[in-house]
Amino acid sequence: MQTASNNINLLGADEQGRRLERVYAAMRAAGIESGLVRTNANLFYLTGRVFRGYLFISPSLARPVYFLRQPTTLVADEGETIHLIRKPEDMAQFLTAKPALELDAIAYSEAMRIGKALEMDSIANLSPVLRAARSVKTAVEQELIRESGRKHTIVYEQIPGLYREGMSDVDLQIEIERLSRKEGCLGQFRAAGGEMEIFMGNVLTGDNADAPSPYDFAMGGAGLHPSLPIGADGTTIEPGVPVMVDTNGNFTGYMTDMTRCFYTGELSDMAMAANDLSAAICRRMAEMMIPGAKAADLYTEAYTMAVEAGFADYFMGHNNHAGFVGHGLGIEINEAPVLAPRSRDILEPGNVIAVEPKFVIPGIGAIGIENTYIVGLNGGEAVTTAPQEPVKFIMK
Amino acid sequence: MQTASNNINLLGADEQGRRLERVYAAMRAAGIESGLVRTNANLFYLTGRVFRGYLFISPSLARPVYFLRQPTTLVADEGETIHLIRKPEDMAQFLTAKPALELDAIAYSEAMRIGKALEMDSIANLSPVLRAARSVKTAVEQELIRESGRKHTIVYEQIPGLYREGMSDVDLQIEIERLSRKEGCLGQFRAAGGEMEIFMGNVLTGDNADAPSPYDFAMGGAGLHPSLPIGADGTTIEPGVPVMVDTNGNFTGYMTDMTRCFYTGELSDMAMAANDLSAAICRRMAEMMIPGAKAADLYTEAYTMAVEAGFADYFMGHNNHAGFVGHGLGIEINEAPVLAPRSRDILEPGNVIAVEPKFVIPGIGAIGIENTYIVGLNGGEAVTTAPQEPVKFIMK
Repeated sequence: MQTASNNINLLGADEQGRRLERVYAAMRAAGIESGLVRTNANLFYLTGRVFRGYLFISPSLARPVYFLRQPTTLVADEGETIHLIRKPEDMAQFLTAKPALELDAIAYSEAMRIGKALEMDSIANLSPVLRAARSVKTAVEQELIRESGRKHTIVYEQIPGLYREGMSDVDLQIEIERLSRKEGCLGQFRAAGGEMEIFMGNVLTGDNADAPSPYDFAMGGAGLHPSLPIGADGTTIEPGVPVMVDTNGNFTGYMTDMTRCFYTGELSDMAMAANDLSAAICRRMAEMMIPGAKAADLYTEAYTMAVEAGFADYFMGHNNHAGFVGHGLGIEINEAPVLAPRSRDILEPGNVIAVEPKFVIPGIGAIGIENTYIVGLNGGEAVTTAPQEPVKFIMK
Repeated sequence: MQTASNNINLLGADEQGRRLERVYAAMRAAGIESGLVRTNANLFYLTGRVFRGYLFISPSLARPVYFLRQPTTLVADEGETIHLIRKPEDMAQFLTAKPALELDAIAYSEAMRIGKALEMDSIANLSPVLRAARSVKTAVEQELIRESGRKHTIVYEQIPGLYREGMSDVDLQIEIERLSRKEGCLGQFRAAGGEMEIFMGNVLTGDNADAPSPYDFAMGGAGLHPSLPIGADGTTIEPGVPVMVDTNGNFTGYMTDMTRCFYTGELSDMAMAANDLSAAICRRMAEMMIPGAKAADLYTEAYTMAVEAGFADYFMGHNNHAGFVGHGLGIEINEAPVLAPRSRDILEPGNVIAVEPKFVIPGIGAIGIENTYIVGLNGGEAVTTAPQEPVKFIMK
């Protein structure tokens, strides 16, 4: 059962202050004097909870100001202010500022409505500021990510025991979903941008690994239905064919991302070699993950390792190649920085990055691993620690 | 395994034509000459699949034009056109039109980017047009909703057997999730607007039913975590306390919405009376659901029935009252029409409406039912047909 606190800010003043400090630094750099936060992901970032309303932030205020629509039972700490509102227009009586809005996330209509209510001629974009701030996790956030990683790992260690003969990829996925939920997975899989939809993650086996998907995820899969064309499609799990498991690691409001392969029978030498290469690339990425490193350089190194091993054609897909080898994550699965050829991101301590050097090989399917790392002074700290070699399903 | 068709339009020309006819009628009424569809929900509505790209629609074209980013393996029928693009700006070479955009759904930044690429001074809003069109389902859509209803009902009929002594609401929810998925539930729970997030639906028991949530759903619940404050919170299921189950009915890309209550021990007379009242209101709503009926009148009738039975204080919540008794649904859970006091919606044949006259009673918790109806000439056709009285869990 969750905490009974009715405080609208569940982070405490200190932790909220640390996060706001990062946001304010980015706002100052961008020449933005104030902002209005509305999306669930960013409200959760700055208050530790989701509510219906807005958070007004400005470096000129000691504490942010809450505009609350629902639930009205929430209360403020001393020194904080909550204004109950029924509609966005009600903010106008409290604000003379022209706050920046999350223009990459809120709908055009909503931005225009707020802009009109607050008599704004033009609207500055708060989204890049928040994206930049969120890309470096505080110590508290890092611990939440470690906790997700621990629980995620506990789930993965139990996957070999879920197998039953004749199972399809979907059958296995359903048992992993149940196990994850029993271990505390919150279910919700947040992806920024609205285009990418996914349920509880992906299980891929056989030729389905090469079925293209419309989304910007690393791997594809036809899915069960054209309304959600990603992942498992009902393919029976066959001996000697790896099953790639890349399922939801949201146990704390912060996600970890982990992929491992499982199998029955025997895997081919080529499949084992590809998995070894994937693990080697992960190790190398973790070594390179030091403050000041260029994200693009990490991609180049990963790609070069794939080329030198003769696996370039299969790197990050076969018919379709994903254009990255790693991505930031936290409250959402697609945060900064991005390990991609044209990324301009420079790594900082506290970045959290999922590295997923995966291969799709004709006749084998999807093979490879993924780990989530916290960037530290001496390299990446893996928070997803299940065994990295392909693990044999337990036959019953 | 899903159909192997690579046709970008999976609906066939006739069904797509029927849907476009409704959209075009609404566009003409609004003075909109062309539109560009981008959201997953509306692409699925007009093509039967989700892809990454845009659909250009105009009453002046015999067939719509596809702008496709991913997956590039999709093909067009004879007489149709697919333009492969890498970015939205690439559309400019093919379009001189100034299309309306889904301004209630796509981000401000994206709308501005397309507006700039197509040299638009102002942007008309396509969202209301699509919302109006989608509120009346074609015969094909109605059959998909009936199919979801049948599968949803099969799940609910098996819920009594899922109970184990000592279970919490979350434990039960996890078993319902697994069962739903085994019966073909796609998992994805689409809600328009971005503010409302939910995983696989809600299971509520005891005092948690009165915990307020930030979302505009009929019922609340604290949830397991402040990042997703809705539904089950880990409360143990107790004898004599109803367990309200309102879980995901998406089996076909189209959702049905159904609520039923389950229990161990004996339910109080008041709980049984409230459930009877809920079922009676549903029956009355179905009778009133005839073409030309005012949605607001249905709400008034439901509320009046609750008042006359002495249940006004508990109607649609206790500490918080939801401001509606029913809502349209289909590809998303929150479509038009809405049965609410100030709704201006007039019912039409082919509307699909979930009616959920629920009660939250101190000492009892949440009690009541919900059914999904298709509006026909003689009233609402229920597509969710599990037994309506509270059902006792099977003790093992």
